[in-house]
Amino acid sequence: MIPVKGYAASDPTAPLAPFSFERRDLREYDVLVDILFSGVCHSDLHQVRDEWGGSLYPMVPGHEIVGKVTRVGTEVKKFKVGDTVGVGVMVDSCRECKPCTEFMEQYCAEGMTGTYNNFERDKITLAQGGYSTQIVCDERWVYHVPDKLNLAGVAPLLCAGITTYSPLKFVNVKAGDKVAVAGLGGLGHMAVKFAVAMGAEVTMLSTSPSKAKDAKQLGAHHFVLSTDEAAMKLHQDHFDVVVDTVSANHDYEIYLRLLDLHGKLLVVGLPKEEPHVNPFELIKNRRSIIGSMIGGTVETQAMLNYCGEKNIVADVEVIPMQKINEAYDRLLKSDVKYRFVIDMSSIK
Amino acid sequence: MIPVKGYAASDPTAPLAPFSFERRDLREYDVLVDILFSGVCHSDLHQVRDEWGGSLYPMVPGHEIVGKVTRVGTEVKKFKVGDTVGVGVMVDSCRECKPCTEFMEQYCAEGMTGTYNNFERDKITLAQGGYSTQIVCDERWVYHVPDKLNLAGVAPLLCAGITTYSPLKFVNVKAGDKVAVAGLGGLGHMAVKFAVAMGAEVTMLSTSPSKAKDAKQLGAHHFVLSTDEAAMKLHQDHFDVVVDTVSANHDYEIYLRLLDLHGKLLVVGLPKEEPHVNPFELIKNRRSIIGSMIGGTVETQAMLNYCGEKNIVADVEVIPMQKINEAYDRLLKSDVKYRFVIDMSSIK
Repeated sequence: MIPVKGYAASDPTAPLAPFSFERRDLREYDVLVDILFSGVCHSDLHQVRDEWGGSLYPMVPGHEIVGKVTRVGTEVKKFKVGDTVGVGVMVDSCRECKPCTEFMEQYCAEGMTGTYNNFERDKITLAQGGYSTQIVCDERWVYHVPDKLNLAGVAPLLCAGITTYSPLKFVNVKAGDKVAVAGLGGLGHMAVKFAVAMGAEVTMLSTSPSKAKDAKQLGAHHFVLSTDEAAMKLHQDHFDVVVDTVSANHDYEIYLRLLDLHGKLLVVGLPKEEPHVNPFELIKNRRSIIGSMIGGTVETQAMLNYCGEKNIVADVEVIPMQKINEAYDRLLKSDVKYRFVIDMSSIK
Repeated sequence: MIPVKGYAASDPTAPLAPFSFERRDLREYDVLVDILFSGVCHSDLHQVRDEWGGSLYPMVPGHEIVGKVTRVGTEVKKFKVGDTVGVGVMVDSCRECKPCTEFMEQYCAEGMTGTYNNFERDKITLAQGGYSTQIVCDERWVYHVPDKLNLAGVAPLLCAGITTYSPLKFVNVKAGDKVAVAGLGGLGHMAVKFAVAMGAEVTMLSTSPSKAKDAKQLGAHHFVLSTDEAAMKLHQDHFDVVVDTVSANHDYEIYLRLLDLHGKLLVVGLPKEEPHVNPFELIKNRRSIIGSMIGGTVETQAMLNYCGEKNIVADVEVIPMQKINEAYDRLLKSDVKYRFVIDMSSIK
C-alpha cells in the first residue's frame, strides 16, 4: 500500500483536518500521480456537509486534480513517469454498459465511481479525492495536460471546465451563435471562456451589477442584469443557448423566455428546490431544457487539448491546504474569483 | 361578404348557440372551403371558458377542419374547386420572420393568427373557427387531404395529429426506438399511432388500468400503469422518448426518470400548474425536455401525406352540431374515444 497525506472531514459538522491514509498498490493499468494542485468545487462543500445525503466519512474531497506521473503499472500504455496529468470527477465505471462503451462513463448505467465520497467497484474500499499528496487511478480516467498551461488554472478544468464544455459542444455552439451564461461563479466563468472561444456572441446574465466588469474581462460581449425586468424583456426570444450555472433557487422560465426558435437551456447548476417550468414557455419556439453532467473520458481529453490550443485555464486563487476551512467560508459568500485551488506542496 | 352559419360562445359561461356571421370575400390567394367536419379539441373548451385568459367573444371555436374547395381566388395555384382540404390551428402569420420563412409559422415572431379567438393580421377582424359551414383561408394554410382517408377521422389530424407527429419527427423517432406515450386522450392516441407507424416499440403510460386494452387496440406493444411505483421503477432509464400529452397537473420527473441516455421528454400537454423539474434527474443520462407546438405548414402537409400512405386517421365519435354542449360535458369526464368530430351537414 502507498501511504498518503491529506485533509479529511470526519463528519458533516467537523472542519477538514489532517488525515493519513493509504492508496492501493498499482494494478497493471494504474498510474500513480503526485498531486500538485487540487481545485475546490462547491460540490466538495455540499458533500462534506452531507447536503445531498448519503455522505461517506472520513471523506477526503477533491476532484479537480493536476499532478505528475511518478509510477505506472505494467500494462499502462498512455502514460510514462514525468507526464503532467489530470484526474477529474470519476475514477472508474462498469466499463460494459452502453454509455461506458461509448466513453460517456459519467452516465454509466451502474453508476460511475466518483473520485471521492463513493465506494470503488469492489464496494468496500472508500474512494478518496484530491485534497491529498498522491492518487492511484486507472489510466482510462487519467488525462494528458498540455504542459504550456498554468497548472493551478488547469485543475478546475477537470470539473468546472468539462461540465460547461460538454453541453456547449453537445449542442454544437459555433461562430455567431448568441449564447447567454447565467451565474458568474466557477462554472459560469468557464462557460463564458468556452463560448467566447467557440466564436459565440456571449452575454453574461447576473443578479449583481458588480459582475458586469468581471464579465467583460472574461471576454463576454454583453451584460444583462437579470433582476432588471425591462432589460430581460428586451432579450426575450433572443438567444440560441442559455447556460444555467445557477445553484441558488430559481425557476427555469426566467431563462426559457430568452430563447429564440429551437433555443436550448443547458442546465448544469443544481438548485436545492426543484425549479418550475411553464409549459407554455417551453412549447413556444420549440425550446428545450437539456441537463448535462461533467463529460466522458474521451471528451475530457478533447477539452484539455482544446484548452491547450486556445490557451484556456480557469481564473484561480491558490491557497495552502491549511486554509481550506477558511476557503469554504468564503465560498459560501461567493468571495472567490473564481475557483480556489490548493497547492499540495503545502502538506508535502 | 359570405354569409356563414355556425355555433358560438357569447361569454365564458354561456353554452354554445347558433350564430350567423360573415366571412370576407375571397382575396387573390384565398380559398373558400365548405366545411364537412370539424374536430372538438380540448383547447376549444379552455378558450370558450376563458381558462387561459384573454378570450375574445363571440367565439366560433374549431381548428380541426376538413372540407371541399368551392371557390378559389384569382392567384390560387395549389387548389381547385372540388379538392378535399384541411385547415388547422392557424390561418396566417407575419410571413417575414425567421420561423415564417422556414415554414415554421406556428413560432412566428409576431405571433401566428390562430384560426379563432384571435384577430386577423388587420388587428380588427375577429378570426372565427370551424364550428361553421364555410371558411375562407389563404392557400398557404390550407392542406391537401388524401381522398382515400375517412374524412371525419382526418379532422383531428389538423391539431392532435400534427401536434404529436411534429415532435416525434423532430427527434427522429425510428424503427426500434423505445417510445412511451403518457396519457391516452386525443393527443395520446395519435402519438401511439404515429410512433407505431414509425417502427418504434411503443408503451402506453396511463393512470387508469382500463386503458390497457384500448392501448393495445391502438397498436401499443406494452402498457404500464403509471401509478404502480414498482412497474415504473422497472422502466427507469428505459425509454428513448416519452411523449407527455397529459394536461392534468403533474411533475415532469415521473417521466424523466424513465429516460435512457440522451432520452427526450416531449411536452405537448399543457397542465395548469407549472410542473417541477428535479435537476438531478435532468442531468442524469443527459436528458432533455423539449416543448412542441402543432407544426408548420410544410410539415402539416407532410403529416397528411404520411397519414395517406400509412392509412392513419383519428378514432372519432361523430356528433351533430346541436350536441356540442353535451360533448363538452363528456369531454370534461374524458368520456370520448378519442375525439368528437362535428358533422357540419347538421346545420346546413
